Amino acid sequence: MKTLVVCSGGLDSVSLAHRLAGEHELDCLLSFDYGQRHRKELGFAALCAQRLNVPHQIIDIGQIGRGLSGSALTDSIDVPDGHYAEDTMRVTVVPNRNAIMLAIAFGLAAAHKAEAVATAVHGGDHFIYPDCRPAFIDTFQTMQDRALDGYARVHLHAPYLHFSKADIVCDGAKYGTPFAETWSCYKGGERHCGRCGTCVERREAFHLSGHPDPTDYEDDDFWLVALRRANA
Amino acid sequence: MKTLVVCSGGLDSVSLAHRLAGEHELDCLLSFDYGQRHRKELGFAALCAQRLNVPHQIIDIGQIGRGLSGSALTDSIDVPDGHYAEDTMRVTVVPNRNAIMLAIAFGLAAAHKAEAVATAVHGGDHFIYPDCRPAFIDTFQTMQDRALDGYARVHLHAPYLHFSKADIVCDGAKYGTPFAETWSCYKGGERHCGRCGTCVERREAFHLSGHPDPTDYEDDDFWLVALRRANA
Repeated sequence: MKTLVVCSGGLDSVSLAHRLAGEHELDCLLSFDYGQRHRKELGFAALCAQRLNVPHQIIDIGQIGRGLSGSALTDSIDVPDGHYAEDTMRVTVVPNRNAIMLAIAFGLAAAHKAEAVATAVHGGDHFIYPDCRPAFIDTFQTMQDRALDGYARVHLHAPYLHFSKADIVCDGAKYGTPFAETWSCYKGGERHCGRCGTCVERREAFHLSGHPDPTDYEDDDFWLVALRRANA
Repeated sequence: MKTLVVCSGGLDSVSLAHRLAGEHELDCLLSFDYGQRHRKELGFAALCAQRLNVPHQIIDIGQIGRGLSGSALTDSIDVPDGHYAEDTMRVTVVPNRNAIMLAIAFGLAAAHKAEAVATAVHGGDHFIYPDCRPAFIDTFQTMQDRALDGYARVHLHAPYLHFSKADIVCDGAKYGTPFAETWSCYKGGERHCGRCGTCVERREAFHLSGHPDPTDYEDDDFWLVALRRANA
């Protein structure tokens, strides 16, 4: 099944691209530049496309990102430290971001005659991002079936939907994903900060998976503090 | 109900903006520049926003438009002459365009705390554009309810869904829409060509509505030929 993979350059979507390259016919990688601070991710997406020998398209939705204000991912608000489970992480929600990116991906897939769009949404995203939950994924497919009726049938493939991030690490390792060439940190630094929600989540996922974490963090110990605080 | 109106500058969406200004609390007009040839439309959308005294935002989705290739609206393929009912008009379909634009509009509405997004999709669009049909509109609302769950409740308002284009002319007249300041032609000329699908449809709608058509067409008689051909 010829598949377009939405790939940010993060751990989840690069693992997904490697899985798809092993299991399906990979059509291309699609990334979105929405004015996020951590553009380093996009470089890792480009590297992944090179490695898997498929085209890489970056769609600039920066103007839309600026319109979706109120989120720390695109604004000058400070990115909060801590675990994803904390209320402060709600500031990282960009309303409707996943719905917008998937709608664009479906249009491009239909135009390129791809048969599927793959997204790396996973269990860990559910409780904070409503547009990453199973109920959203189901209704999105139904909406797209209607929107493209008579022109194309594009399948939404979300194999990590019920995976934890630790499960993704295991899956990525199985398909030979070079984790050091993926990016998670929400801050704009040279190294992973080790303190923001995604760094803590990444560190914890490697720990739980039992796979060694090749990431170079500025703060190597903060994740345990954050985890204890979230579980308190 | 504070409403964002998706407004291209065409007859339908300018009439919709005037209706909403009369009935609801108009929040802003939102237009999309997707590299369409008939950018004259966008100027009429800006004029409409000025007239109704609301902000106007133009989102550039040109890069996406270029990716959605195979359509005469953005490509160098000739725009076909004739009535919308003809097979040749299928070339004007941009896959998923409406789904993409509405997903972006919902994201912006949620960010701006608007309560509704209004779209001018109408009965005449149904048979050619699958993402303008009632079944699509219903599932789109369901998808958005899930995508924004817990953050916002944005209503999709499509009052022309079961209107013919002639009904829209009557409605637009009722709300004082200055039809001469709307654009329909798919070709890039100074005047409405009178021969493309949207010109023929516009001319016919005024005829059926009984309202005078203020449009200056290059070819004033072609619509009757096209209509006879479509009905043959």
